[in-house]
Parts: sequence; C-alpha cells; structure tokens
Amino acid sequence: MNKIEHIGIAVKSLSKAVSIYEQLLNTSCYKTETVVSEQVNTAFLKAGDNKVELLEAASEDSAIAKFLEKKGEGIHHIAFAVDDILEEMERLKANGFVLLNDVPKKGADNKMVCFVHPKSTNGVLIEICQEIKWI
Amino acid sequence: MNKIEHIGIAVKSLSKAVSIYEQLLNTSCYKTETVVSEQVNTAFLKAGDNKVELLEAASEDSAIAKFLEKKGEGIHHIAFAVDDILEEMERLKANGFVLLNDVPKKGADNKMVCFVHPKSTNGVLIEICQEIKWI
Repeated sequence: MNKIEHIGIAVKSLSKAVSIYEQLLNTSCYKTETVVSEQVNTAFLKAGDNKVELLEAASEDSAIAKFLEKKGEGIHHIAFAVDDILEEMERLKANGFVLLNDVPKKGADNKMVCFVHPKSTNGVLIEICQEIKWI
Repeated sequence: MNKIEHIGIAVKSLSKAVSIYEQLLNTSCYKTETVVSEQVNTAFLKAGDNKVELLEAASEDSAIAKFLEKKGEGIHHIAFAVDDILEEMERLKANGFVLLNDVPKKGADNKMVCFVHPKSTNGVLIEICQEIKWI
C-alpha cells in the first residue's frame, strides 16, 4: 500500500470544522463535495502530500450521522492510496480481512474506494482508494 | 503544517497488531521502541512517505491503557510534521488551540512533540512533531 491519501474526520458542522482546520493546518480548504450515495458533505484540506477530509452527515440516515450519534466527533477512517484497487481487494481478502463492499464504489475526490471492516484491523476503519483516470 | 508524519493506533497486543498491520500494509515493521516517559511500547510501519505507529500500554497507568479502557482499540492520534515546533506551538496558542504541554517533549522515533487537546479540534487528538537533528 502507498501513502496515507487522507484522514476522514466526522464533524457535526462542516462550516465550523473547516474554519477550525484551516487555522490548525494553516491552509485553505480547496474543495467541498457532496457524495450523494453516502449522504455526506465533505471538505478537503492539504497537509503536505496528504489530505484531511472533513465529513458532515447530509441526512439522518447517513453512516456519518450514526457514527456521530454513537461516538461523537472524531476520526472516522484512514484512507491509503493503492495502485490497483481490484488486486489489493483480492490480496486483503486472501489475508482474511473483511471488506465492506465486494466491488469498488465511487467515493469523493474522484476516487474508487473500498472499506475494510474495523473488526479485522484493531478497531480502525480502513479505506483503500485509487484515483479514477479518464482516458 | 507539513505532511501527516504518522497515525497512532492504540492496540491491546503489540505483537498481534504488528502481524495484522504487516499483512494489511504489505510491509514489515521497521522499528520498535519503548517510550519510558509515556509508558508505551511502539512499533512503526511505513506506508509510502507516511507511518503507522502502533501503541501498546507498558503499564496500567499509561494514557494508552486509559484510552483502551474507555474507547477500546482504534485511532489514538494524528501527527503532523512541522519545521519549527516552538513557532508552531505559538501560532496554535495564538489561534486559541489548547496545547497539552507547554514545552515540547521527547516522543518516539527521534522526535520532539506537542499535543493539541481534542476539545479544540473536533474530538481529534493532534500531535505536532519535529525531528531532532544532532549536530
């Protein structure tokens, strides 16, 4: 697996959190995006070659709303960049990791993504992601 | 702030977690270190230019033991690399962030570190760190 592509942080208010993380990281948010399929509003900030993704629930049914209700604000997932998501999903399955989706799905920031269940990774929700290249 | 230097993950058994994360990241643990002042045993793995730091309590009094008791295994902190930790601590204080130590302290992996209280960063324990250069 390659670098940490981003850290996903669940927040109650995206606008307030963007303001806080802009001050913390001393940089401006460079992108906001709603992922309709996940019912989530996202905002991205850069930290060197890595990113912080702030995640706000866009509906009460979204996974982020449930996370906030259960655990409160905090780190939701770590995403690692991979070169070949299908190959990596096969490798992880062969090693006994539990994948949360059988095929890659469209995530934010022009990525195909797959999640690994935290029960197989010491309580950490892991995302693997590959940038979509349009040719 | 620069790149994500590492993600710290609190685990019950370092040896078991090292085995899991070696398989997950498809790489070998390259360093283990006990930080006596923090009562913590650590193990490091690389993911591209970033690191994963696995953290096991070395005593019942350590912050990691208390974290595990309260929240279970999972992400404990995110560490960002900075060029000048003293300057960055001043900048964060001036912006209203709550620092957990007034002066940098010695962390694992040859770093001087300072923590930012999660109450000022949407529930996320942030570490800033600067590599110690011996001249």
